[in-house]
Amino acid sequence: MTTKIGEIKPGKVEIQGWIENLRDKKNMQFIVIRDLSGKVQVTVIKAEKPEIAEIFSHTTLESTVKITGTAVANDFVKLGGMEIIPESAEITSRAEAFPIGPESAIDQRLDYRWLDLRSPEKALIFQVETILNQAMRQYCIDHGFIEIHTPTLIGASSEGGADVFEVKYFDRKAYLIQSPQFYKQMAMAAGFERVFINTPVFRAEKSHTKQHATEFSGFDIEMSYVNSQEDVMKVQEELLAYAIGEVKNKLGDKVKELLGVDIVVPTLPFPRITVKEAYSILRDKLKISIKDGEDFSREQETALCKYMEETNGHQFFFVSEYPSKVRAFYTMAKEDEPEYSKSYDLYFKDVELTSGAQREHRPDVLKKQIEAKGIDTAPMADYINFFKNGCPPHGGFGLGLDRFLMLLLNLPSLKEAMYLFRGPDRLTP
Amino acid sequence: MTTKIGEIKPGKVEIQGWIENLRDKKNMQFIVIRDLSGKVQVTVIKAEKPEIAEIFSHTTLESTVKITGTAVANDFVKLGGMEIIPESAEITSRAEAFPIGPESAIDQRLDYRWLDLRSPEKALIFQVETILNQAMRQYCIDHGFIEIHTPTLIGASSEGGADVFEVKYFDRKAYLIQSPQFYKQMAMAAGFERVFINTPVFRAEKSHTKQHATEFSGFDIEMSYVNSQEDVMKVQEELLAYAIGEVKNKLGDKVKELLGVDIVVPTLPFPRITVKEAYSILRDKLKISIKDGEDFSREQETALCKYMEETNGHQFFFVSEYPSKVRAFYTMAKEDEPEYSKSYDLYFKDVELTSGAQREHRPDVLKKQIEAKGIDTAPMADYINFFKNGCPPHGGFGLGLDRFLMLLLNLPSLKEAMYLFRGPDRLTP
Repeated sequence: MTTKIGEIKPGKVEIQGWIENLRDKKNMQFIVIRDLSGKVQVTVIKAEKPEIAEIFSHTTLESTVKITGTAVANDFVKLGGMEIIPESAEITSRAEAFPIGPESAIDQRLDYRWLDLRSPEKALIFQVETILNQAMRQYCIDHGFIEIHTPTLIGASSEGGADVFEVKYFDRKAYLIQSPQFYKQMAMAAGFERVFINTPVFRAEKSHTKQHATEFSGFDIEMSYVNSQEDVMKVQEELLAYAIGEVKNKLGDKVKELLGVDIVVPTLPFPRITVKEAYSILRDKLKISIKDGEDFSREQETALCKYMEETNGHQFFFVSEYPSKVRAFYTMAKEDEPEYSKSYDLYFKDVELTSGAQREHRPDVLKKQIEAKGIDTAPMADYINFFKNGCPPHGGFGLGLDRFLMLLLNLPSLKEAMYLFRGPDRLTP
Repeated sequence: MTTKIGEIKPGKVEIQGWIENLRDKKNMQFIVIRDLSGKVQVTVIKAEKPEIAEIFSHTTLESTVKITGTAVANDFVKLGGMEIIPESAEITSRAEAFPIGPESAIDQRLDYRWLDLRSPEKALIFQVETILNQAMRQYCIDHGFIEIHTPTLIGASSEGGADVFEVKYFDRKAYLIQSPQFYKQMAMAAGFERVFINTPVFRAEKSHTKQHATEFSGFDIEMSYVNSQEDVMKVQEELLAYAIGEVKNKLGDKVKELLGVDIVVPTLPFPRITVKEAYSILRDKLKISIKDGEDFSREQETALCKYMEETNGHQFFFVSEYPSKVRAFYTMAKEDEPEYSKSYDLYFKDVELTSGAQREHRPDVLKKQIEAKGIDTAPMADYINFFKNGCPPHGGFGLGLDRFLMLLLNLPSLKEAMYLFRGPDRLTP
């Protein structure tokens, strides 16, 4: 039985790990072995164990090793006041020299991602994602949501057709989903009431910003019986606060120590403004010109984020009721003011994290909204049909898990937040 | 605030749901409203609420409705001894007549999957999957596994190249993964020690059996520091027993009531035989001819499954140490008998649920094994490179979540176990 290095107690022990350091002295060898849980020193007295000394004198750093021996307390050893006196040692895998180092450029590091990731700091990023993701799912399950696995292969390109990857599907064409939007709404027509989906989504965009990838991990929810976007916003803020709280509880200290980041659990409710209030802030407080009915530019977003964080001391805020013309065709318009919609965006730090809305569930109104956007309704026949046999009012949101992780841990780019980044120029390893 | 129908208490209430039944009598209307949590009767006295009676006299079954009113006890009402006397009623979505019914053929039902799924029995299938899937993840997290999201888009077709979907990727080609095998092994080289992955996987096979789909939901794990396949089998049986136990605890009664299925939580350990023992059983006990070193036919598998369940009274069993020639190139051969491998299959009821193994982590041996299978090593350069800078001994398994669900609930086909089935002839809805 292999013991985790972080859990070694004095006595007989078998450990496995990587050779992080090796000092080969005249009479002694001092080897530091690392696994994900910690590091320990192995001390070889050459005269007593010549066959083990022989093994370590011919190995390389970052090789993997299996060692049996006795763990003993030794106050002179800095690493946990403990050392292992080995009985046997076996090199299980021998490392060649590394082609990259921590100082290599990001794209070189991505070429050798399996080496780039080999540190407790990098592993921690994905340990955080594990807790974050699982907590998001658990919140949903605790609140009556059903998880569905929606297909990524579709017969017709959804949501208008731009920026979609085409797949050779036997003797015809298929496409990769840009979002599970249609299929989560389908679940509302099926009476599932509340669903969440965690699936890869795809964008055939030749973008090279720090926030774009061609494939990323989406987290979507949809819920029935909503009265407005406010019902969705309430679920979203609770879900995020819960998930961030779980990260803070389970890994907050380690994140602080290894990544130098303070995880801040957001207070509820998140600050909220309407888009009209955002226009006023931009014009009156920040002296930035914007017309009613316009979408924000990146610069306007950044200025607004800065203002909101300074004013509220909160890393999140909602902007609601965007102009209908800048939102997707499936967004419900406000009853009393149809040029504005029952929609929202959620900002986190200085970036838009997610979009949500109440959807248009009346098939006749929906069809008109699609036509008004100049989109062909023919490939959407099934989608419109979803709503013809009864479908309750509903709404939801979608967010990019990788982007959320990047923002939470202040990572410089999506490339650092994804296990394996995919971009227009990157399909390997 | 909308109250779930299953949680109505006497007093003022707002409910939303589907019109399941409507009896329009001379002086009264009796409407049964259904949501996912239950059903309730709404009683309209026409003389007292003519405007509500007018609404219900012009609506259709399966339309959705929002009702406010007062819930009162009434011993004459069969449905929970409770009825709602409405104050207001609003049809939120009007249903056209259904194009399918429960008696329709499966492919017709799939054409209108959003209607096919509209019953508490169908929703329950996915409620079971939700608990099953989350419990599998939770077991992993509780045992030190990190979740990773591996890409589905790859630059070169993995594992030999047959049956792979091709994607138009800007000015080049990409492919869809058949399994995250390479990427979970990469995590071992990165020092992640234990990972799990829940991702769609793809098979470009023109199969039409009840067990095949072109896209399905994979659940994979990989773990470092294993000594043989036995270490992997131990994790797998514990994981499955835990997950099935969670389903039994949380939904066992409902599954029994609505689907007529007894969920059996398997005892530990699962029965185990080697492939050589399986050959003996087939030849000596079942009088079925098979040669040493051969793979099982479907008929041989079925006979073996029947024998094992009858002999052991257990729905699961492992077969280990398959001939190396019938296993993938990345499987480690037995040290003392290289024509057999450190591999296993797990059978559930009468079907192979999963394959697992210890992997070959030595790059020189791995390269030889790839060549021995007649596979081109060139597209696998990155994969072989994973193991060149130190990689601990490791192993893992993969299973199809949809297949697991199908077997657990005795569903007649994968089409019933998937939210939206994808096959050679089906890409819609």
